[in-house]
Amino acid sequence: MTLPSRLTGVIPPVCTPLTPDHEVDTASLTALVDHLIDGGVSGLFVLGSTSEVAYLPDGHRKVVLDTVVGHVAGRLPVLAGVIDTATLRVIDHVRTAVAAGVDGIVVTAPFYTRTHPAEIDKHFRMVAAAAGLPVFAYDLPVSVHSKVGADLVLQLAADGVLAGLKDSSGDEGNLRNVILGARDLTAFSILTGSELTVDNALWMGADGVVPGLGNVDPHGYVKLFKHAAAGEWEAARTEQERLVRLFELIGVGDPARMGPSSSALGAFKAALQLRGVIENAMMAPPQIPLNTDEIAQVEKHLITANLLA
Amino acid sequence: MTLPSRLTGVIPPVCTPLTPDHEVDTASLTALVDHLIDGGVSGLFVLGSTSEVAYLPDGHRKVVLDTVVGHVAGRLPVLAGVIDTATLRVIDHVRTAVAAGVDGIVVTAPFYTRTHPAEIDKHFRMVAAAAGLPVFAYDLPVSVHSKVGADLVLQLAADGVLAGLKDSSGDEGNLRNVILGARDLTAFSILTGSELTVDNALWMGADGVVPGLGNVDPHGYVKLFKHAAAGEWEAARTEQERLVRLFELIGVGDPARMGPSSSALGAFKAALQLRGVIENAMMAPPQIPLNTDEIAQVEKHLITANLLA
Amino acid sequence: MTLPSRLTGVIPPVCTPLTPDHEVDTASLTALVDHLIDGGVSGLFVLGSTSEVAYLPDGHRKVVLDTVVGHVAGRLPVLAGVIDTATLRVIDHVRTAVAAGVDGIVVTAPFYTRTHPAEIDKHFRMVAAAAGLPVFAYDLPVSVHSKVGADLVLQLAADGVLAGLKDSSGDEGNLRNVILGARDLTAFSILTGSELTVDNALWMGADGVVPGLGNVDPHGYVKLFKHAAAGEWEAARTEQERLVRLFELIGVGDPARMGPSSSALGAFKAALQLRGVIENAMMAPPQIPLNTDEIAQVEKHLITANLLA
Amino acid sequence: MTLPSRLTGVIPPVCTPLTPDHEVDTASLTALVDHLIDGGVSGLFVLGSTSEVAYLPDGHRKVVLDTVVGHVAGRLPVLAGVIDTATLRVIDHVRTAVAAGVDGIVVTAPFYTRTHPAEIDKHFRMVAAAAGLPVFAYDLPVSVHSKVGADLVLQLAADGVLAGLKDSSGDEGNLRNVILGARDLTAFSILTGSELTVDNALWMGADGVVPGLGNVDPHGYVKLFKHAAAGEWEAARTEQERLVRLFELIGVGDPARMGPSSSALGAFKAALQLRGVIENAMMAPPQIPLNTDEIAQVEKHLITANLLA
Repeated sequence: MTLPSRLTGVIPPVCTPLTPDHEVDTASLTALVDHLIDGGVSGLFVLGSTSEVAYLPDGHRKVVLDTVVGHVAGRLPVLAGVIDTATLRVIDHVRTAVAAGVDGIVVTAPFYTRTHPAEIDKHFRMVAAAAGLPVFAYDLPVSVHSKVGADLVLQLAADGVLAGLKDSSGDEGNLRNVILGARDLTAFSILTGSELTVDNALWMGADGVVPGLGNVDPHGYVKLFKHAAAGEWEAARTEQERLVRLFELIGVGDPARMGPSSSALGAFKAALQLRGVIENAMMAPPQIPLNTDEIAQVEKHLITANLLA
Repeated sequence: MTLPSRLTGVIPPVCTPLTPDHEVDTASLTALVDHLIDGGVSGLFVLGSTSEVAYLPDGHRKVVLDTVVGHVAGRLPVLAGVIDTATLRVIDHVRTAVAAGVDGIVVTAPFYTRTHPAEIDKHFRMVAAAAGLPVFAYDLPVSVHSKVGADLVLQLAADGVLAGLKDSSGDEGNLRNVILGARDLTAFSILTGSELTVDNALWMGADGVVPGLGNVDPHGYVKLFKHAAAGEWEAARTEQERLVRLFELIGVGDPARMGPSSSALGAFKAALQLRGVIENAMMAPPQIPLNTDEIAQVEKHLITANLLA
Repeated sequence: MTLPSRLTGVIPPVCTPLTPDHEVDTASLTALVDHLIDGGVSGLFVLGSTSEVAYLPDGHRKVVLDTVVGHVAGRLPVLAGVIDTATLRVIDHVRTAVAAGVDGIVVTAPFYTRTHPAEIDKHFRMVAAAAGLPVFAYDLPVSVHSKVGADLVLQLAADGVLAGLKDSSGDEGNLRNVILGARDLTAFSILTGSELTVDNALWMGADGVVPGLGNVDPHGYVKLFKHAAAGEWEAARTEQERLVRLFELIGVGDPARMGPSSSALGAFKAALQLRGVIENAMMAPPQIPLNTDEIAQVEKHLITANLLA
Repeated sequence: MTLPSRLTGVIPPVCTPLTPDHEVDTASLTALVDHLIDGGVSGLFVLGSTSEVAYLPDGHRKVVLDTVVGHVAGRLPVLAGVIDTATLRVIDHVRTAVAAGVDGIVVTAPFYTRTHPAEIDKHFRMVAAAAGLPVFAYDLPVSVHSKVGADLVLQLAADGVLAGLKDSSGDEGNLRNVILGARDLTAFSILTGSELTVDNALWMGADGVVPGLGNVDPHGYVKLFKHAAAGEWEAARTEQERLVRLFELIGVGDPARMGPSSSALGAFKAALQLRGVIENAMMAPPQIPLNTDEIAQVEKHLITANLLA
C-alpha cells in the first residue's frame, strides 16, 4: 500500500518474539501483529529499538520483514527500521526492506563513528535516493549520541528528502519547532516516541505516536489518540495518565543485575506472555532475563491496569 | 597461522582503500598490505575503526577479509574486527572471519543499546564461545559509549575468555591496571591504540601497538617498537616525538565542513595516495572528502617527515 | 510575605542588568522588576541561571537580593537561587538570602564534584534544615550533570524537605511522573522552566512557569497562563506558539564566536535594552557580547512580535 | 617566595582536614603540611579538588590559605586553587589568595554555564590580568565538562598569560602535544595530576606531579620523582607500580552507598588518620563517610604498602 501523506494514529514499534534458541518466533510475531491490529493501530513499525533491532542479525531482520509484511497483506502500512552504523550498511537494509514490500523506512543518524551535521545531511540524502520510498528520520540521541535538530529536519523535509520524523529524543521544545516549521508541508508526518506525553505531542500538532508500551496495551494508546483526534482532551489526558502508571513496569529489573534495555524490553515481553499474546519472554543476548520476582511485579502492574483477565 | 601467546610489535589497523564507486579497491589493498609488511609490522588488524569498518557493508567486509588473508598467506597473523551492535550480529561476523581464516578477532562492547557490565561480560563470553579463536576486547568508549574496565578485562582473561586487549580508550591509568594485573598471565596480549604514547605503553609493559598512523609510516612505528624492545628508550622517544608531529595531519580537515573521522581518515588516505601506495583517497559515505587545500597540507606534513621522495 | 502552599502563575527568572564596569545596575534592575510586575507576574526568581548567577560574585548577589526584595516590598513572593557547588557553600548563600528577606530558595544538586543520589538526598536535607524557608529543587542536568529524578523529588516532598520543583531538565516524561506522584500533596509547587512547552506543562498539572523569555515578554507568558487557568487551551496554545517563534532570538549569536549562554542571555538583554527597560546589554565576563548585526536580528524579532513601538 | 620559572618535583594537592563540626582543623592541617614537607615535596597545592575545594565555603578557604601560607613561611612555594564558576567569582578568590601570600594560582575553565573556547580564552586572560601572579591552567574535564586543549594552552603560554598547566584530564596524547609545543618556552611548567602514570609524564617531559595519593605517601612520589630526575627510570617505574597498587584504596567505598569522590577522599583521609597525621577522617557534606569495614580495607592497603608501623 502507499503511505498516506500524513500518517496518523498509533504505529507501535513491534516487539520481536524469539524462540528459546533465539530464532524469530514467527507464530508469536503474527499473533502479536493480530493483537495490535485488533487494538486498532493504524500502522506498524518493525525493526525499531523496541523490536531489539540492534540485537537481531540480518537473517532475523529479513524473517521479521517477510513475516509481518506477508501477514499484514496491505491492511495497514508497515514502516521498517534500517538501523545500522553508516550509509552503505543502511542502504543494504533498505534494499531488503524494499524487496520485502514495506511502505516506508526509518533511519537514524550514523553512529559508532564520530559524525557531523554535514555528514548526517549527506547520509539522509543518500539513503533516501537509494530507497525510493518515504523516509522517516529517527531522532534518538540516547542511542546514536547525536541530535537531528529541527533545522536539519525541516531543510530535508523542504527538499523532499524526508517524509517524516520519528522523534524519540524526549526534547519537546525541538519537537515543537519541527511541528511549527512543518505546518505548511502537506506530506510530512511527525510521530512521537515519547510514551508519557502523547497527549502533549498531539496537542502541539504531532500526527501520531510510536509507543513501545503500545505492544502491551494497544487499545489504550488507540483510545488516547481517538479522544485527542475528537478534541476530547480531558479524556485523552485521563487515558494518558493511566498509561503513565502502567509504564512503571519498565523499571522492574534490578539495576544491579541488568541495564535499562533488559528491564524495559523484558517487562514488555513478560507482559505480552502473561497476556497470552506471545509464547515466551526470551530476549536476544546479551540482555539479562527478568527473574520470577520481577515478572511477578509485571503481573501486578497488568492486574492494576485491568489487562489480565 | 596460530597467534603467538604474546602478540608483540606493530599491528596496524589496515585502511580500506575504495574505488570511486565505493567498492573495495583490492589492488590497492594488497599494495597497502605489502607496504605494511615491507615496513616490518608483525601483524595486521583488518576491519577496525581506522579501516572504516562501521561504514563497510558485510559484502565489503568479506572482500577485505578474503583479500588480506589470501595475500598474507600465513606470513604474519591477521586479526579481524567484528564490529556490530550486539551479540548475535557479532557472531555472524565471527563466522565470516573464521571462514576466511583469520587468526584472532577483536570485539567491542555492545553499542546503540544501553548496556550494563553484566551484559558486556555475557557478550564477550558468548562471542568467544562461538569464535573458537583468540578474542581481543576492544576498549573504545568514544565509539561505544561504555568502558570495558580493568576488573572485567582481568576476570575474562583469568577465565580464558579473552586472549588480549586492544586499548583505544586513552585511559592510561586503567591500562596500567590491566598491565599489572595481567603480568602473570602467560597468554594475554595488551595492545595500545594510542598513537602518541606508544613508548609509554611499552614502557609500562604493553606488548604491542595498533597505530592508525602506522598505515602512513609503518617504518616509524616499527623503529619505535624495536628501540623499545632493545631498551633504547631515548631513541624510542625521539622516534615517537617525530610521529607525534606527523600525527598533526589528522587535523587538516575544516571542522566547519566535516567531522573528526572524515578529517583523520581522509588525511591517512590522502597520505597513502601521495606516497603512491593506494590509487585514490576515496572514503566511504557519508564522510566528507578533503579539499585541495587540505590535501596540500597533508603533503606538507609528509615532506616535513621525509615521507615523500 | 509567606509563600502560598501552591505557587502558581508566571515567576520569571529575573535578568541581572549590569553597568559597563560589571557592577549590578540597580536602577535598571528595579525598572526590570517594575516591567515584570506590570506584566502581571505572580512571583520573581532572582539569581537563577538566566540571572547569570554563576557569573556573579557574592557581593553582586547580595546587591541583587537587597535591591529586589526591597523594591518588591512584599507585593509578590521572591525566590532566590543559592547556586553553588556543594552543601556548606550553598548554606552560606541561604543565610544571605534569608537575611535579605526572600520567601523561598531554589537549590540544585551538587556540581563540579562527582556526586551520587545518596549525596544529593543528603544535600537537600541539610540545606532545607539550614534554610527554615520553603526549598525548591532545581533540576538542571545541562549545568550540574546529574538528574534529580522523580523518585527522589517525591520522597523529599513526602518528607517535608522540598516545597517544590523547578524543572529545567526538558524531560517531560519525568516531570509527568512528579506531577502524578505529587497530586495529593497539598503544599508542593511544580514549576517548569521549559519556555516552549508551557501549555503542555500546565495541561499535565504543573502550577507555574519560570520562563527566561518572560523577561522580554512577561505579558505573553501571563496571557498564556491565564488562558490555561481559565481552560482556554486553544488560546493558550496560540500564545505559546507566538512565544516559540519569539524564542528564536536566542540563536542570533554566531556559534563560531560564542557559546549558547552568551547568545541567549545577550539576546534577552539586548531585547530589554531595545524595549527601553534596562540601560545596556552588558553581560558578565567571560561571556561574549552580541555584535551590531546580531542585535539587529534581535530587533527584527521584537518587531515581528509587536514588542517595539 | 617567587615561583621558579620551571616548577618541578612533587607538589601534592593538600587534603583539608576538618573537625567533627565541619570547620577547618588547622592543627591537623599544619601537621599534614609538616608530613608533606618531611616527605620531601617541592611545593604545595592548596584548595584543589583533592582539598575538597568545591565543598569549602569562602571562610574555610581563607583559613586554609592563611594557615598553610603562614606555616610554610616561604620554605616552599604554595599554589592555590581559585575554583569557581566564572570570571568575577574567580577573581574574588584570586584577591583572597594574593592577600594571603600564595605564590601562584590554579584556574579551571568556567563551569555550570555552557562555555566556548573564546570564552575560556577570555576567562584566563582576565583572571591572569587580575592576579599579577603566575597562573596555571587546570585541565579537569571530569569536573568542568570542557577541555582546555593544547592549542589554547600553548597560545596562552606564548602570550605570557599562563605560567603552567596542571593536567588532570588523563589525556596523555594532548599532554604530549603541550609538552612538545612548550619545549622552547623558558618559563612554563607542566604538572600532571595523573597519579598512575607519573613516570610516563616525566619521561615525556613534564616538570612535576600533583598526586592526591601524595598526601598518604609523599615519600613514595618524591622517590619516584628523584629516580626519574636522575635517569633511573627502572627504579622510578618500580616505585610507580607500588603506588599504582596502593592507589586501589580509593575504591573501598561501596558504589551503592556513595559516589567516587566520597570513596577516594574518604580513603585518603582515613589513611592519614590511620597514619597518625590528622585527627579524624571527617569529610565535608554531602559526602558519605566510609564505614568500619571500608576503613579496615584502607588499613590493609597501608599495611601492604608498609605505611603503618
